[in-house]
Parts: sequence; C-alpha cells; structure tokens
Amino acid sequence: MLGSMMTKPLLISDLIRHAAKYHADTEIVSRETDGTMHTTTWSGVENQSRRLAAALGKMGLRTGDRVATIAWNNHRHLKIWFAVSGGGMVCHTLNPRLFPEQLIFIVNDAEDRVILFDKTFLPLVTGTREHLKTVEHFICMGPHDSEVAAALPGVIFFDDLVGGETAYDWPELDETTPCSLCYTSGTTGNPKGVLYSNRSTMLHTLAISLPDALNLSAREVVLPVVPMFHANAWGIPYAAAMTGSKLVMPGPGLDGDSLVGLIDDYRVSLALGVPTIWQMLLASAAKSGSRLESLKRNVIGGSAAAPSMIATFRDKYDCETIHAWGMTETSPLGSANQIKAKHKGLDADAMAALRLGQGRPPFGIELRIVDDKGAPLPEDGHTEGALQARGYWVVDTYFGKQESALTEDGWFDTGDVSTIDPDGYMVIRDRTKDIIKSGGEWISSVDLENIAVAHPGIAMAAAIGARHPKWDERPIIVAVKADGADPSEAEVLAMFEDKVAKWQIPDAVVFTDAIPLNGTGKMLKNKLREKFGDTLIERGA
Amino acid sequence: MLGSMMTKPLLISDLIRHAAKYHADTEIVSRETDGTMHTTTWSGVENQSRRLAAALGKMGLRTGDRVATIAWNNHRHLKIWFAVSGGGMVCHTLNPRLFPEQLIFIVNDAEDRVILFDKTFLPLVTGTREHLKTVEHFICMGPHDSEVAAALPGVIFFDDLVGGETAYDWPELDETTPCSLCYTSGTTGNPKGVLYSNRSTMLHTLAISLPDALNLSAREVVLPVVPMFHANAWGIPYAAAMTGSKLVMPGPGLDGDSLVGLIDDYRVSLALGVPTIWQMLLASAAKSGSRLESLKRNVIGGSAAAPSMIATFRDKYDCETIHAWGMTETSPLGSANQIKAKHKGLDADAMAALRLGQGRPPFGIELRIVDDKGAPLPEDGHTEGALQARGYWVVDTYFGKQESALTEDGWFDTGDVSTIDPDGYMVIRDRTKDIIKSGGEWISSVDLENIAVAHPGIAMAAAIGARHPKWDERPIIVAVKADGADPSEAEVLAMFEDKVAKWQIPDAVVFTDAIPLNGTGKMLKNKLREKFGDTLIERGA
Repeated sequence: MLGSMMTKPLLISDLIRHAAKYHADTEIVSRETDGTMHTTTWSGVENQSRRLAAALGKMGLRTGDRVATIAWNNHRHLKIWFAVSGGGMVCHTLNPRLFPEQLIFIVNDAEDRVILFDKTFLPLVTGTREHLKTVEHFICMGPHDSEVAAALPGVIFFDDLVGGETAYDWPELDETTPCSLCYTSGTTGNPKGVLYSNRSTMLHTLAISLPDALNLSAREVVLPVVPMFHANAWGIPYAAAMTGSKLVMPGPGLDGDSLVGLIDDYRVSLALGVPTIWQMLLASAAKSGSRLESLKRNVIGGSAAAPSMIATFRDKYDCETIHAWGMTETSPLGSANQIKAKHKGLDADAMAALRLGQGRPPFGIELRIVDDKGAPLPEDGHTEGALQARGYWVVDTYFGKQESALTEDGWFDTGDVSTIDPDGYMVIRDRTKDIIKSGGEWISSVDLENIAVAHPGIAMAAAIGARHPKWDERPIIVAVKADGADPSEAEVLAMFEDKVAKWQIPDAVVFTDAIPLNGTGKMLKNKLREKFGDTLIERGA
Repeated sequence: MLGSMMTKPLLISDLIRHAAKYHADTEIVSRETDGTMHTTTWSGVENQSRRLAAALGKMGLRTGDRVATIAWNNHRHLKIWFAVSGGGMVCHTLNPRLFPEQLIFIVNDAEDRVILFDKTFLPLVTGTREHLKTVEHFICMGPHDSEVAAALPGVIFFDDLVGGETAYDWPELDETTPCSLCYTSGTTGNPKGVLYSNRSTMLHTLAISLPDALNLSAREVVLPVVPMFHANAWGIPYAAAMTGSKLVMPGPGLDGDSLVGLIDDYRVSLALGVPTIWQMLLASAAKSGSRLESLKRNVIGGSAAAPSMIATFRDKYDCETIHAWGMTETSPLGSANQIKAKHKGLDADAMAALRLGQGRPPFGIELRIVDDKGAPLPEDGHTEGALQARGYWVVDTYFGKQESALTEDGWFDTGDVSTIDPDGYMVIRDRTKDIIKSGGEWISSVDLENIAVAHPGIAMAAAIGARHPKWDERPIIVAVKADGADPSEAEVLAMFEDKVAKWQIPDAVVFTDAIPLNGTGKMLKNKLREKFGDTLIERGA
C-alpha cells in the first residue's frame, strides 16, 4: 500500500447521526393520524430511531430482514426508516391504496416479518392479516390504544417500544447491505420489488441534494407531500437528514386546505408532489386567498404537469416549478429541470418551453433513447425513442428474481417514450404502451391530455388510441366533466385547433363519470382502451 | 442474492464523460502562459484528455504510476488531471513555489515518471533535472517551442501528443485506485504526500458541490484562483465537471488587475482564493473603479480572512463571502460557512460574527476538539481544543509511510486549535504551534493579527509568543509597514484597546522589512520566533 484515505462505508445510519449532531434542534413538524400537530427535532428522531432499532433487535430481527410500513408521512414513519435501515434491516414501504389482494401478494413475496401501521389502516391490517404468512408482529404507530388492541390481539404499540432507556450503537455494515424495498405499481402483472442498498441510497441522496437537482440546504423548510410509500418520497427524508432541512410532514391531510394551511403556518419553502396534489392545492389557495408567500419552489413529478399549472405557480404565486422525472426503479430521481448559465437570456416563451420538459440527469445517471431494436437514437430534441437509464441508483435485478432487469448492454428500459436534446434535456412524450400509433406516426397522449384539461369544463382527460379500419389507431379523448360544467364534444375538440398538427387532432371526445386510477393515482389506460377502444368503429369509421 | 442495484465504481473518468455529454458546449476559458486567452469546452477537454491518456499509455505509463505537473491553472492542466486520473495513473501536482531542494525531495519520494510543465517553469525544470532520479519524460505544456527544445533535449510537447486521432476508452478501475497525490507544505520537517483515491475524490466532489458547501451548478461561472497545486484547487476542477460549471482559469495572471479583468470580461459569478489574493483584488478594483458586478460569491480559505475584508465584499460589492476551512489531508474541504434557516432573522452584527468563522462540515466529515490527552472537549462555542477530523476524504496513511497518520481512535489531528459551537460551527483560533501561552492562558495569534492589519499603515503582521521571565510567553506583533506609511508602535498598540481583554494586548510591536512566507503563502512564524523571540527580554522584561 502506497498510502491511503480513510475507508468508511456509505451508510444510512451516518445520515441520522449527522443530522443529530449538526442539526440537533432543527424541527420535524408532523400532522398526527388524529389530526393534531406534533413537533420533534433531528436529535429527537435519532434518539427514538436508535431505541426502535434496539427494540427490533430484541424482537429477533436480523440484518437483511424485511420490516414493512403502512403509514402516512409523519415523524414515526421517519424514525422507522432510520431505525430499520440504520439497524441493517430492510424498510419495506407498503402502499395502502393497493387492493388488499395486491398487498397480500407483496407482503408474502417480500416475506415481511413485522408490519408497522398507522391507525388509519387498521381495517386493512385486520382484513388481510390471516393471509400474511410471514408476519410475526404488528406494531401500531402511536400510544397504546384500546380500540386497536381489541381489534388486533397481540398488537404492539410504537410509543411503548421506544419509551425506555437504551444503549445501542448503529452497526457497522457493508455498504452494499440492502436498506429498503419498494414495489412498483405496475398497471399490468404482479408488482415487482426494487431492493435499494445503503450505497445506492447514499449516492442518490448526495446527488438529489445538489443545486441542479432538488437544491436542498439547512435553509429550507421542506414539505414532502409525495408519500413515503411512493418511490421513497423521492428520497426527501434521507436528503433532509443529510442537509439539515426542516421537515413538515403532512400525515393524512393531503387535501388542498390542509396543505395550504401547513405551508402558511410553518413557512414551507419547498414542497414536492404529483400533479393532482397541486391541482387541489391551487383550488384551495384560490378559494382562501392564501398567497403561499413562503413557498419559493415546488417539485412536480410522478406524471407531467400541465403548462397552465406551471404558469399559475410562476405568475400568481412567484413559485418556481421544478419538473422532475423518475421511477421506483431509479430510486427515483432520473432528471430534474434546472437551467444552465446559457439559458439566462431566454425570453419568457422560450424559457417556459424549456422548463416544461423533465430536465437533465444529475451526475450519476445516464439516459439514452433507443429504437425498437435497441439501437441508440439521435439526441436532437425531436427524435422520439424508448427511454433507458443506467447509474449508481438504478435497479439491476428485482427482488427475488434470478434474471437481470436490464437490456443485454446493461441499461434499464423505463417504459417511457421521450426525446433528449443536445444539452441532455429530456421530455417524456408518453408511456411506450400509451402512445397512439396512427398510420405509422406516433402521437403523444400526454400532449392531447394537456390540451383537453385546459378546457375549464374538463376535470380529467385521457387520450387513448381507438381502433380504426384505415389508420390502425386514431386518438380519442375520454373526459370527466368538471362539477357543474357541461362542455360539448365540439367545444373540447375546438381546443386542439392550431395547437397540434391537423392529423393529430382527436377523432372523438367521449364523456364518462370517472377514470379508473391505480394505487399511485395514475390513469389505468388499459381499462379505458378495453371500454372505449371501439368507439370509432361503433360510430361507423 | 435477493435483488440488487447496479454496481458501478466511483471514477474520475465518469466526471469528464458526464461533462462532455451533458455540458458539451459549456466553455473553459483560460489565460495561456504567454498571456493570450484560450477558449475550449467540456467536450474539447474530454477529447484531448482521452488522447493524452492514450499517449501516456503508449509511453509505458501504467495504473498507479505517478505523473507530475508544474503548472498554472489552465486548460492543459485541466486536461492532464482528467487524462492521468481517468487513465488510472496518479496526478501529482508540484508546487513551483517550493525551494528547488524541496521539489527534488518530493519528486524522488513520489517516484514520478513524467513531469508536465508550463514554460514559465523551464528554469526550475532544467535547474533540478539532474537530481530527479525517476523522471523519464519531460512534457512542455504547449506547442513546439525551439527555445524549450534547446534548453531541454528530449523534451516532448503537449500539443504534439494530443494532436492525432485516437481510439481510447477510459479503463474500468476499482474505485479505491489512487488518482492524485499532493504533498503538504509543512513548515517543519520533510513534506508528506497525501494519496487520494478515485472514491475519496468523488465523494468529496459530490459533497463540496452541495448548496451548504460551495453550491455549484451549471449556472455558475467559476474562477479558481487557488492553484491546482494547492490542495487540488479545493476540488473545483472535479466539481465543475460534475456540475457543468463554466470555468475561467487565470493562468499565470494572479495579480489584482488581471483577476478584476477576468471577472468583468467573463462575468465570473464565483471566485475562490486565499486572503492575499483578495487583498490585491480589492486594491485593484478600488483603483480601476470596477464594480465586480457579476461576482455574487467568493470563497476564502487557506487562512482566515480579516473581518474588514468580508465587510468590504459585502457592503461595497454586494458579494457574499463564504469562509471555508480545510487542508491537504482533508482533500481539502472540511467546513464551509453557510447559514441555517434559524439564522435568517439575525441582526447585522450577529450575522457578521457568525459568518466570520470557518463554518460547519458537510455530510461526510466529522470534526471534534480534544484536550492535550486526546479527550473530547465540549462543543460550546468557547472551549478551545485541538481540532481533529475524520471522514470519507481524510487521509489515513501518508504516501510511502507504514504508520497510520491517525490517533489511536481513528481521527486525524489537524494541528489547528479551534472552538465548535452546538450547531457545529467551527472557528479556527490558531495553529497548535502558533498559539501564545501566557501564564497558562491561551491567546490566539490570529485575533491579534486581524486587529493589527486593520491599521491602514500596516501591510502585514504576525503575532508571536516572545519569551517572558514571568509569564513564559507574552504576545508581540511583528509588522511590515505599508508603502509610504510610518505608524508608531504606540499607534498600533492603541488598536487593541477595547478589542481584546487587557491581558491579551501585545507587549510590543517590532517593525521589519518582510515576513518570510512558505510555498503556499503562509507566514513562517518559527523563523520569526527565532529572530524576535527574545524581544521582551532584550527590552528588559
């Protein structure tokens, strides 16, 4: 050995130790499941995490064992994350919006030994418990509660577990030790688990905190609306510990009024969530007259934000929207839309156009687009191809699978269709399976949906390919009317004039009462295709 | 295996590949050694780095071999860094300000096989060459030059090496492969080499780019005045590639006028350097009337900045000074002074006081203070102790040494004396060997020097402990008068009234023509103690 630097594994436990040492009094505010507000600090989170890790150890949990949660974003959930991962176990976040049979499949597939749950989800737990073959302990996240105790004999209460004194040191682990597990919310087939390692999570945490990603610091007050069971709340709980951000956790209150209240009461400077959240929030702010004064930035991911939404945040609330893209398989951050020095002089229209896309990858992720045969396509800003990713925090092999999740040359196919420009800015055009193929040309369903929902009488809209005898597929819009509104088909179709090429204008608009959504709020277009796929043929096309 | 994420080593070559792909047209501007300006891009840097790596391979250089530079901050030096480290060799930056015998010692100790040098340093190369036992090739950084060729038979020219076409792929290396080597500029004893690894450098690069460290993004135009041979230019060349910053490299022009010109001509937004650089720059800006309009932030490290300098940048130029601390052994960043959310309401005085210190460590570094026996001291903001560090980018074992550089419990002793407050904010009080011990009490030489140099008639001042029959040591000031000024001893001593406790006021001021500096501009106080240590006894104390 000629000389060396210190060797030290990249571990989740170091995040919470860092936060407790350097940001001891920085607050973690959260809404409890009963609606009351609770305040602790990073020091408090570390202290109770350590006690919980010790308690889980005493219950017989060992390195690599899976510990599941069914929980809102709150302080106990945060403590569980650090206790489980810091203690060498695997924190498995379950999505409570899944159908019970999916939840049962996932728990059994993961072989979870413990489930920690918020009281809200007691019916889900009692309703599925007899099918959960590997679960030995149920822990309710709160103080002792006789209602819960009666409904679930043998239940343990979180607050009892973390009450006593304890001497516990975070274990020294190999950095490739798994730390967490999240299942994809596949719209078809059984969900698949992505098993993150301490290393992949730590590198992701560093990268998402960078100025050109989410730009996190000890000066921010961060509201993660995106659930901790949805692609790790985009990594915010880890990154907040690394950077010493103050956290405001919304608990069960995901309605617009509750979120506006949290932003105004706790001076939130950065909030993160999916488009539907922001729709509700904007409606609530418009109603209450809140100026959302403290909110400087919001991050929108999960699905694409409509241009009108970004404009409203910018023009009405002086809030910068950062469009981001990622998925469970990419930890999740794959790209974020931040500008470069050369863009500073762009005029308003060009800047708005640039910021509509999903941005460019931070260091650590590479993106490319390929054709049907897997050959790379030009990154010219207009060629569309299947989006593939690789990097430090991208899945290699799904949980429990033997076969690689990657292409032969080592890339992960995202299932999205996108363009990439010479600066690396990526724009999601569609899901591979949702793109509409009309006479050999591709039409992005996302573009058509954005135009349709800009009509004030439309609450939600899906563009799908309907079968057509001449063109194979032609686009139609399936729309849900806004409360009290009654737009006509012709009015909605008129929205498309001059906004897309003539041959891309949908052939029909059909109205429906509701569009089916999956557990993470994504439209189930396969169900719509089943129901409305023959609309044009029925109309005599 | 239950499942896994991609495994991918942390390599320097990925930095330059990332920059070339995602920031291809972002410019690298540099002043050539002949004074002219040169512009390339990240794509150009990558291209020529790859050719140089191929050429070095053809010359017989192998993984781990040391390749030295004696060079200014310019585009060729940048290309060498990525070529050598990306290619698996060790880039050894030599400080041209060292005495020739020190340079010879270091080159022989490192067993450098190649030296690349700027033409400026031809005399240093020809003057030492016969003593450099292991060097096989000298490469002059520029086009063919007959003067150089005549003076140094066998010399190779950089531009010839990178001229041809080449097919070369960056090698896949283990991430613990060494990438660079830098010797400490010890004021006593032989210099010692710190051998950085790809991993330690990559983690350092991620961390220093974070918002609470140097806050680097693709929106910045960065001027690293701090030399690439001085603790890796504080990591800026790597971090600029990671974040896609535009770089402005000052070459040999480190005088105030040249730097003001670069800032104004290239709209530099962030500049980094040691206090003496800023003194010259402020003098030049005052003379020329430049408003340094584009400069939003400057980073000061190497030694402490005087409060008056920070105030001038803030009040006159609307430029935020970020005080930072580190050393060769810590890659170098150990701390940076950025505020937290809770500090936003501080009044101007309290804020100025907070920002005077060296700040808090980014995630990845821990700091502590210990007493003479190595026992940790309270982090209360006033207890002073020996500063120790540990983390991902801290030295473990010096180059070629068998014994660890660390304490028994695994910390690196920095040789600094500091305080740390409960928020982790660290203030350097002195070097362990420079602190003045008067009757058992410690007096910081740095504090006294800051007060002395605030006198307009003083150009430079050192506070040292002079021997005293009653108090063991008492502080005296050794001062160099400013051009044309002639302050009296009494006038200088009057500066201290009400600024420090009575017993800390120096007993004497002695004037001298020059204060000796080491190769990195630090005052050689041991020389001053030799010369002026008996001042008080001679005066009859």
